[in-house]
Amino acid sequence: MGIADLGCSSGPNSLMVISDIIDTVYATSNRKGIPLPELRVSLNDLPGNDFNNIFISLPEFYSQLKMEKNIGPEGCFISGVPGSFYGRLFPKKSLHFIHSSSSLHWLSQVPRLLDSNILKPLNKGNIYISKTSPGSVLDAYLSQFKRDFSVFLKSRSEEMVVDGHMVLSFMGRVSTDPSSEESCMQWELLAQALMSMALEGLIEEEKIDSFNAPYYAPSAQEVRSVVEEEGSFTINCLEAFEIEWDGGAPSNNNFQKHIDKIEKDNFSRGQQVAKTIRAVVESMLEVHFGRKIIDELFKRYAQVVGDYFSRTSAKNIDLVISLTKKG
Amino acid sequence: MGIADLGCSSGPNSLMVISDIIDTVYATSNRKGIPLPELRVSLNDLPGNDFNNIFISLPEFYSQLKMEKNIGPEGCFISGVPGSFYGRLFPKKSLHFIHSSSSLHWLSQVPRLLDSNILKPLNKGNIYISKTSPGSVLDAYLSQFKRDFSVFLKSRSEEMVVDGHMVLSFMGRVSTDPSSEESCMQWELLAQALMSMALEGLIEEEKIDSFNAPYYAPSAQEVRSVVEEEGSFTINCLEAFEIEWDGGAPSNNNFQKHIDKIEKDNFSRGQQVAKTIRAVVESMLEVHFGRKIIDELFKRYAQVVGDYFSRTSAKNIDLVISLTKKG
Repeated sequence: MGIADLGCSSGPNSLMVISDIIDTVYATSNRKGIPLPELRVSLNDLPGNDFNNIFISLPEFYSQLKMEKNIGPEGCFISGVPGSFYGRLFPKKSLHFIHSSSSLHWLSQVPRLLDSNILKPLNKGNIYISKTSPGSVLDAYLSQFKRDFSVFLKSRSEEMVVDGHMVLSFMGRVSTDPSSEESCMQWELLAQALMSMALEGLIEEEKIDSFNAPYYAPSAQEVRSVVEEEGSFTINCLEAFEIEWDGGAPSNNNFQKHIDKIEKDNFSRGQQVAKTIRAVVESMLEVHFGRKIIDELFKRYAQVVGDYFSRTSAKNIDLVISLTKKG
Repeated sequence: MGIADLGCSSGPNSLMVISDIIDTVYATSNRKGIPLPELRVSLNDLPGNDFNNIFISLPEFYSQLKMEKNIGPEGCFISGVPGSFYGRLFPKKSLHFIHSSSSLHWLSQVPRLLDSNILKPLNKGNIYISKTSPGSVLDAYLSQFKRDFSVFLKSRSEEMVVDGHMVLSFMGRVSTDPSSEESCMQWELLAQALMSMALEGLIEEEKIDSFNAPYYAPSAQEVRSVVEEEGSFTINCLEAFEIEWDGGAPSNNNFQKHIDKIEKDNFSRGQQVAKTIRAVVESMLEVHFGRKIIDELFKRYAQVVGDYFSRTSAKNIDLVISLTKKG
């Protein structure tokens, strides 16, 4: 059984997902009274990902598999596959299950139209789609997403067996408006923090104008239409979940949540969000703006996010889609 | 076509081997007028190996494949497989060609007998087999090699298709005597360098007594007999090559070699060998003796190797064996 996690990143989460998948296959095999299939597990991310960090923890992972499930070294084979998932990564018909979490909102590149108008920036003062972005910017982002996601589906369809399953989750939106707060506000506040530094001469404003995030938060309908146009997969289910900026999935215990919120003031919530976002976008910003400005930028970002929390309950939308490879 | 390089290490050599293998498959396909098979290439080494360093150079490697041979991203899939080759690494019957260079002389562990006699060290003053080692030490090393190499062959036999090929090269010896100079001298000189430091109180002598290299340079006959006993492979060819300590394979141009030697004095040759050996064994020595002593140790080692060069032409034996998986 070929299993792949696309955009596995590096850290405890990388193997946690794999562990959950193996648990499910193990439980299903037991329930059906059939032997566990030989598991080929591929961890994929870009070549610059820290695979060493994952690999060094594999011996312990294998020991746990042996101890908890009696899966020995002949039962599970984990490998690292560096490369972009916007293209082929695996041999033909070699995969039965594909998972990807928090990765597909990253585009393969900044939409070309935005990159090619450096002298006359189209998206002035913004670093992603915003209320002030012209329609051409919205279109450029959408068509880059369509192209990328379509290549993704085509590549996976060649790698998967018929009836293979794929579960993807990534940032998206419920609103039809691509400049809605739920999909843009984290970038908008980051742009505010950058602009405040530009006002004080700490960053050149042109640098901000020429930066555009290679990111797109599609609507469920946009996702659905790319899947249908590409044609290799059937959608089993496509759902949208609200996720609080600083809290993962909303807690079921509302009373506890209430208490927690009182205890945690907006400033510290802002700091937490700033740390999370920094972990994701720091390297990208560093390349464009230089390393010097990063500490100050995220200090200010924590501040503006904290202010935002005092005005509204900040939420993202996570889309989760389950697909089956057509015959 | 499943291809694996076992003990790929990290550096330009890692992909050079793969490149050579692909060249051969490419040329053979062209000659036979058949399409190039889809290539699944697995790079294996221990989980602590620097896979990141290999992975970061993959995009350039893939571009070259495309440019030079028009092999696109759907034609060659390279992955990293961390783990010990003394055990299963790959799914059943998934490999057609296995290569391993300069790795199989490393044992899976120090022979247990040597590790368990810490209070009364069996191999006093030595760090590998030496002329002064008792017979029990020689036996312990040989049986550890037999056990390890047999597990290696058994594991590979499960992973390979019938008629699959395997080419292995590793340090060995021509002599039947396991304490012959050709297989022990590099360790013996390292022990001398350590002992000279012990004499000056820079290292505790007990530390040297309790260190034994997890290494074995087998004779061609020992290798042959393990292959025959294990039974899964036919030997196509088993050859021994002399390799100069500081020069790789002997040059064909003897005149040039002569000139080179005059120009390069024994001291600088000693330094070069010390650097090479340091790259291989430093981490192992560091764990046992501590980091502090390493610089001084290899300074002294360069000296003793230089002296040795002035007395003799120092050569290792490299065994190369080609095997086919039986039906």
